[in-house]
Amino acid sequence: MWFEKIVAEGLSHTSYMIGSGGKAAVVDPRRDCDIYLDLADRNDALITHIFETHRNEDYVSGARELAHLSGAPIFHGPRMDFAYGNITHEGARFIIGTLEISVLETPGHTEESLTFVLADTEVSREPYMVFSGDTLFAGDIARTDLAGPDQKAAMAEKMYASITRKILSLGDGVILCPAHGAGSVCGEEIADHPFSTIGYEKHTNPVLALGHDTFITRRTAESPYLPPYFRQMEKVNREGPALLVEFTRPYPITVTEVTSRIASGCQIVDVRSPTAFAAGHIPGSLSIWGDGIPSFAGWFLDYNRPIVLIDDFSGNLAPLFRHFSRLGYDNTTGWIAGGFPAWYRAAQPVEMTGTCSVQELKDLMSREKPFLLDVRDKKNREQVGYIPDSVPVYIGELEQHIPEIPKYRPVFVYCDSGYKGSLGVSVLAMHGYTEVTNVLGGMQAWVRAGFAVEH
Amino acid sequence: MWFEKIVAEGLSHTSYMIGSGGKAAVVDPRRDCDIYLDLADRNDALITHIFETHRNEDYVSGARELAHLSGAPIFHGPRMDFAYGNITHEGARFIIGTLEISVLETPGHTEESLTFVLADTEVSREPYMVFSGDTLFAGDIARTDLAGPDQKAAMAEKMYASITRKILSLGDGVILCPAHGAGSVCGEEIADHPFSTIGYEKHTNPVLALGHDTFITRRTAESPYLPPYFRQMEKVNREGPALLVEFTRPYPITVTEVTSRIASGCQIVDVRSPTAFAAGHIPGSLSIWGDGIPSFAGWFLDYNRPIVLIDDFSGNLAPLFRHFSRLGYDNTTGWIAGGFPAWYRAAQPVEMTGTCSVQELKDLMSREKPFLLDVRDKKNREQVGYIPDSVPVYIGELEQHIPEIPKYRPVFVYCDSGYKGSLGVSVLAMHGYTEVTNVLGGMQAWVRAGFAVEH
Amino acid sequence: MWFEKIVAEGLSHTSYMIGSGGKAAVVDPRRDCDIYLDLADRNDALITHIFETHRNEDYVSGARELAHLSGAPIFHGPRMDFAYGNITHEGARFIIGTLEISVLETPGHTEESLTFVLADTEVSREPYMVFSGDTLFAGDIARTDLAGPDQKAAMAEKMYASITRKILSLGDGVILCPAHGAGSVCGEEIADHPFSTIGYEKHTNPVLALGHDTFITRRTAESPYLPPYFRQMEKVNREGPALLVEFTRPYPITVTEVTSRIASGCQIVDVRSPTAFAAGHIPGSLSIWGDGIPSFAGWFLDYNRPIVLIDDFSGNLAPLFRHFSRLGYDNTTGWIAGGFPAWYRAAQPVEMTGTCSVQELKDLMSREKPFLLDVRDKKNREQVGYIPDSVPVYIGELEQHIPEIPKYRPVFVYCDSGYKGSLGVSVLAMHGYTEVTNVLGGMQAWVRAGFAVEH
Amino acid sequence: MWFEKIVAEGLSHTSYMIGSGGKAAVVDPRRDCDIYLDLADRNDALITHIFETHRNEDYVSGARELAHLSGAPIFHGPRMDFAYGNITHEGARFIIGTLEISVLETPGHTEESLTFVLADTEVSREPYMVFSGDTLFAGDIARTDLAGPDQKAAMAEKMYASITRKILSLGDGVILCPAHGAGSVCGEEIADHPFSTIGYEKHTNPVLALGHDTFITRRTAESPYLPPYFRQMEKVNREGPALLVEFTRPYPITVTEVTSRIASGCQIVDVRSPTAFAAGHIPGSLSIWGDGIPSFAGWFLDYNRPIVLIDDFSGNLAPLFRHFSRLGYDNTTGWIAGGFPAWYRAAQPVEMTGTCSVQELKDLMSREKPFLLDVRDKKNREQVGYIPDSVPVYIGELEQHIPEIPKYRPVFVYCDSGYKGSLGVSVLAMHGYTEVTNVLGGMQAWVRAGFAVEH
Repeated sequence: MWFEKIVAEGLSHTSYMIGSGGKAAVVDPRRDCDIYLDLADRNDALITHIFETHRNEDYVSGARELAHLSGAPIFHGPRMDFAYGNITHEGARFIIGTLEISVLETPGHTEESLTFVLADTEVSREPYMVFSGDTLFAGDIARTDLAGPDQKAAMAEKMYASITRKILSLGDGVILCPAHGAGSVCGEEIADHPFSTIGYEKHTNPVLALGHDTFITRRTAESPYLPPYFRQMEKVNREGPALLVEFTRPYPITVTEVTSRIASGCQIVDVRSPTAFAAGHIPGSLSIWGDGIPSFAGWFLDYNRPIVLIDDFSGNLAPLFRHFSRLGYDNTTGWIAGGFPAWYRAAQPVEMTGTCSVQELKDLMSREKPFLLDVRDKKNREQVGYIPDSVPVYIGELEQHIPEIPKYRPVFVYCDSGYKGSLGVSVLAMHGYTEVTNVLGGMQAWVRAGFAVEH
Repeated sequence: MWFEKIVAEGLSHTSYMIGSGGKAAVVDPRRDCDIYLDLADRNDALITHIFETHRNEDYVSGARELAHLSGAPIFHGPRMDFAYGNITHEGARFIIGTLEISVLETPGHTEESLTFVLADTEVSREPYMVFSGDTLFAGDIARTDLAGPDQKAAMAEKMYASITRKILSLGDGVILCPAHGAGSVCGEEIADHPFSTIGYEKHTNPVLALGHDTFITRRTAESPYLPPYFRQMEKVNREGPALLVEFTRPYPITVTEVTSRIASGCQIVDVRSPTAFAAGHIPGSLSIWGDGIPSFAGWFLDYNRPIVLIDDFSGNLAPLFRHFSRLGYDNTTGWIAGGFPAWYRAAQPVEMTGTCSVQELKDLMSREKPFLLDVRDKKNREQVGYIPDSVPVYIGELEQHIPEIPKYRPVFVYCDSGYKGSLGVSVLAMHGYTEVTNVLGGMQAWVRAGFAVEH
Repeated sequence: MWFEKIVAEGLSHTSYMIGSGGKAAVVDPRRDCDIYLDLADRNDALITHIFETHRNEDYVSGARELAHLSGAPIFHGPRMDFAYGNITHEGARFIIGTLEISVLETPGHTEESLTFVLADTEVSREPYMVFSGDTLFAGDIARTDLAGPDQKAAMAEKMYASITRKILSLGDGVILCPAHGAGSVCGEEIADHPFSTIGYEKHTNPVLALGHDTFITRRTAESPYLPPYFRQMEKVNREGPALLVEFTRPYPITVTEVTSRIASGCQIVDVRSPTAFAAGHIPGSLSIWGDGIPSFAGWFLDYNRPIVLIDDFSGNLAPLFRHFSRLGYDNTTGWIAGGFPAWYRAAQPVEMTGTCSVQELKDLMSREKPFLLDVRDKKNREQVGYIPDSVPVYIGELEQHIPEIPKYRPVFVYCDSGYKGSLGVSVLAMHGYTEVTNVLGGMQAWVRAGFAVEH
Repeated sequence: MWFEKIVAEGLSHTSYMIGSGGKAAVVDPRRDCDIYLDLADRNDALITHIFETHRNEDYVSGARELAHLSGAPIFHGPRMDFAYGNITHEGARFIIGTLEISVLETPGHTEESLTFVLADTEVSREPYMVFSGDTLFAGDIARTDLAGPDQKAAMAEKMYASITRKILSLGDGVILCPAHGAGSVCGEEIADHPFSTIGYEKHTNPVLALGHDTFITRRTAESPYLPPYFRQMEKVNREGPALLVEFTRPYPITVTEVTSRIASGCQIVDVRSPTAFAAGHIPGSLSIWGDGIPSFAGWFLDYNRPIVLIDDFSGNLAPLFRHFSRLGYDNTTGWIAGGFPAWYRAAQPVEMTGTCSVQELKDLMSREKPFLLDVRDKKNREQVGYIPDSVPVYIGELEQHIPEIPKYRPVFVYCDSGYKGSLGVSVLAMHGYTEVTNVLGGMQAWVRAGFAVEH
């Protein structure tokens, strides 16, 4: 058999491709799916099955696109009003060469979540790998709050049953292939591991160490952040995403051209580093570094207004548009030719914001009382502690909390390092704040410098 | 300015891309035109003009495809019933950044042929480069017979005027960028040179050394080979080629699957080497090595029957399908997974043909009188000479001459080296010849061995 | 942590690279080790440890080369007179960022074999992965005969203890990372699996299902093939291989040049397909397809005579020389520019051998009694059966059995498909056999054709 | 024939490779010369000749390295005490397949400068291409001041003779292949053209339009900038550069490690953008963007102190070290793993400098009198004009002019866009200036904004 693990960076989404005897299956394809066709070609195989572990909410499914390009049928779970593909059920079996894939219904993350169990009959009928989608991850399990607040207890019960009765019982030696790795918004504690096994998770996954009651209580009490774009993804993935071939490629646009596009409502995303952004940027632009797009674009960007990117030096940002495509932003335009230098060479207006080191911040705090905004998530704040007197507002929810942040007083924004801090600075600047500073190194630097931390 | 020369191997077709100030133009794009979009991205430029020197007859124009993908307008010449694009005329000028492109009408190869003259006004208004399409090549000029036998003299006159009055007069220092390089079917004597200049051609191009009368007389007397697919290309390029996005990718098919496709009429093209073909092949398959597809597929393959490729070892022949796409063969299927070994491992019928060295042939000829078929073109036969008693039939016209070749007597096929020989062998085998042998090394080896050559 | 599995195709040798916190370790590096330096760069890490599971006998260790290029120390096992590197022992621990590697002494394949157990302390101190070298493979275990016939029982006992007491007891959920995958000469039954786990092996590995006594009895009785180059590798790997930087790159040589090199003793390896070889080749050349070099070159090629390769079409065989370098063939020259066509175009002598289909062989056998040579290994012959009246001589040992093969009678060589058959044909031709034929498809085709099989 | 033009970006150095009949020659190889070996492999050719047009002073010649790797002999000109290679003279001829290269002695730039004239005898004995080294460029000619102030008139005379009598007389249609393109320090007015011809230069090159006397007068009066590293290059290229295989690869180093290296004297080069540098950098670091290294590193960096690079985001700066290697900086170490974020996350000291837009500068100038430093070269200042009251100090000579720049007053640095401005800011900061600001967009923005320009 052959096996490929395909990681979509940033999203930390993992799809898998397995093949045998000239046939191949793809589990949870991403939307930009040329990679699957290339792998099929390289392995002299035809894609014959597309499996979806569940209706995703954090990215646009590539199943419909891949079905269009390969002709292969899509299989997903029951109890969901999918407008495309085929429904499959517990106990169904699929044959790909010597491989046998059998289906488990494992609700919990969503109602129709499936888990696919792979055996390679050339060796044995024993389970070899399990594609667990968004149920069991390495070091964590998937969130169970998406069905709504009143369904939390019920979904937690389902997840508990799915994992303990169906997945863990497959055997300790089974290789675990989940749909997300470390860094995903679908599980905050996912380990940074290339692979795991049922046995390793039994021994090390802290969530599995909780008894049934604690598991349910905690899950019911939790309210993970919910990016607004999730609802859009759920809708799109139920109804069937638009095909990428219908959209034009992003292209370079000149500074002159972009000024008129800004006037008519386009959104500028600045993908440079936090320092580069601070020392000069287009007024009204949003600061999100390239790898941050998958996690943060969906909190801030409007699906109806075109998107234009800007980088340092020059050119070719085409690869970054994969991120937008995966999030369903199909209304993109391109990037500014020549990058930010082209902008300032053309004497266009430049806005500056501040940066400071933790030492400077400490000094300042000994003299005056700046407004200190902590944009990290709750968990990080709890685990690591925080700078005294800082006000917590999670970066994703910053726009809703604007009224609570004083406008005519210097604001210092910090996160764990400086990237989300820069995003926060850009959001505030967009809302008219004029004295905003990003604390370089954020909490990491503060701790390293040995300054006082509160909990 | 930036400049890129893009060579489509096999066809020896050359397209050009030039850019300045964030804009770019493409001259004579090929049909698989992602390369132009990638180059535009890399140069932070937008494609704003697509120029066609003439309605091609040896490949499918990529102008319509590129216009579809880039949004740029197409410009071609007058006096042709194009169903798409814009007509431009002598004296028209186009601006791309600091570049100025002006149009010359240079009929001869076709009635509407254009030549584009480039000046870089940043340096000077002097002509810098000339995109001469199919008029003046390095070392040769384009054929003038395509308008039909009765138009030969008239077209030769037009070509003479176009070259001598318009192109040569641009100045010796002008860089010549023609639409074809060595190996093209559009000019047999094209030099294997990366670039040329007007001055170098004046000094070295033998056709330019002929006086007017000799030029016309020779041209009128000549009848270059006319591959049957030319008529299809002319039609397609006048009416506007289908868009590639409408077709599915080629894919691997299994031996079992291919047997049923053969039964229902698909054409097998064997892209292995002449020796590999001889020692075993699928009965009924056509032997054309990969780089030979552009030159020879159009003589033998049916546009209406699907095409399947087979190679040695295994897999991935996707890149070879670019050749078919350029020739307008859109009814392709894919390739046999696992290559020829998969075929013989499956105990499918294998046909053998012969190979011999020139020494063996010589020996044999001293003892008996084999039928010796010379499939080289006339010019090569005239220039190099031939093996005594061999019968000339140009490979492209072999199928029309089948009745002249004895069926129940050993046939030895030779060309200049062995590739076209193998193609000839495969064509004869397809027509029921059972004792056919490819002379390895062909005329080159015969000459090197020091054997008698007739002229 | 990050993790990379690096497969050396053909050898089916697997090395691993793991990293954390800016440091990285390599387990069992191959000799062409730029890939490790590139991976270190890409992961912003410094190579700090080189681990060797044992003194290899099937390829040249890259440890010394990598130590030279990276400055990292080498660690290998005790009880072996290594002339380089450091000895490490059971219980030693190494720290690479958050990773902890502990050493197990696991003799059996060799006396000093080590197994490395990895824990990622960021998650847990539980074993996460095990680098088992040549002890436990997926679906097989390593050979235990290399210490010599009189040591077989003793080594089998050691292997049994190493596996059952040390490796299997690590826990079912531990991921197994052995030094070889399917196709290696170090284990004939290795499964074609990307990864395995202790638990999966416990359930499915047939060798582990044998009780102690059967295990020892079988192992003591077995005599796997022993390629002659193993002794060279053992010596080289003990003494420390020469550094690659000391050798010149392989380069293209002309046909004229190669003829004089042949005269002075160079060895020609023909890497074309079996069919291509049959229909014409350089007299005296050895037929080994590219991917077959790692497995078969070591049986036939002399370390003291230079090696020249020849392929179809043309050029650039530089990548194939990695195979020779891994086998310790440092006396290589290059490849014939222009490939085999250049040879026959130059009217150089061409030798032909035969091919036939299984149907033709069957026909022939009904009329006469050809000498049928089965060059498959014993296991394949036993498991699949054989063509009646065929004589078994394993391809690797063919040269020693030449006297048993009749010279003046047609010889038909077959293997399982046709590659080793072609190699056998070339060896016989080299020894003066003139009527030698390769049975295309070999035993696979024979079985598929439904012909009688003996056992 | 085949032909490759190899551009070393930044240096704008161009080397050429030509081949025919399995042989190849390289003209003016760069030091990192794997590209020539790869091209030789790809073209099935052996490098048989290495030609040097002159002893370079702006980069380390790759001739010795390439000779070491390929075995080919080196040919350079007479009247120079080279410690390696062979001397060749006017009229010498070299044969590479069908190509004939003949030598012209063309002193002027250096005493031993050669020009190589190429004819492809397959077509004609007429000159086809000319490799003019540092004599005639596209749009300019090479500097003639390097032999020292008292030799300027003499060298100008020689250059005039070399160009007018030897090169221009080759014929208008000859393709010109000089050793530098636009952006080189060896000719300020070189046109941004892929190729030129003798004829095009005759018509458009402004230097060729000067009569003899004006040419000599101007040349004798001119004093182009002379980077201090030129003397090092001249010495190294005369004596024979060290071989690259003798040096270790650059590698990633941690922040902790780099702090101790800084303490012991290493030089930090910050390759981020001007804005990124301004908003935070390592105190004492030099700001040179990646493509600026070839032109500016040689003015500022010490050959005896190790070099460490730092970038945004993370890692892998290995490719940038090619630039240093070409300049002869062999004492390099590597790059800071994790980039600048790793630095500030570790709470290391961060220094800030200022940025401002031209509008802000204009505003400020209406209120106070900042010190305005123009670091552009003389020519740019003359041609474009300057901001009123600005003081010109060319960036390369800034360190010598430090005493003239007021330390306790705000300094605003500008260039044409902002890159050299950032370099200037970093140099001043290194010398203890605390209020230094880079004017974003520099003179380009100032002009675009429509502000007053002085001449």
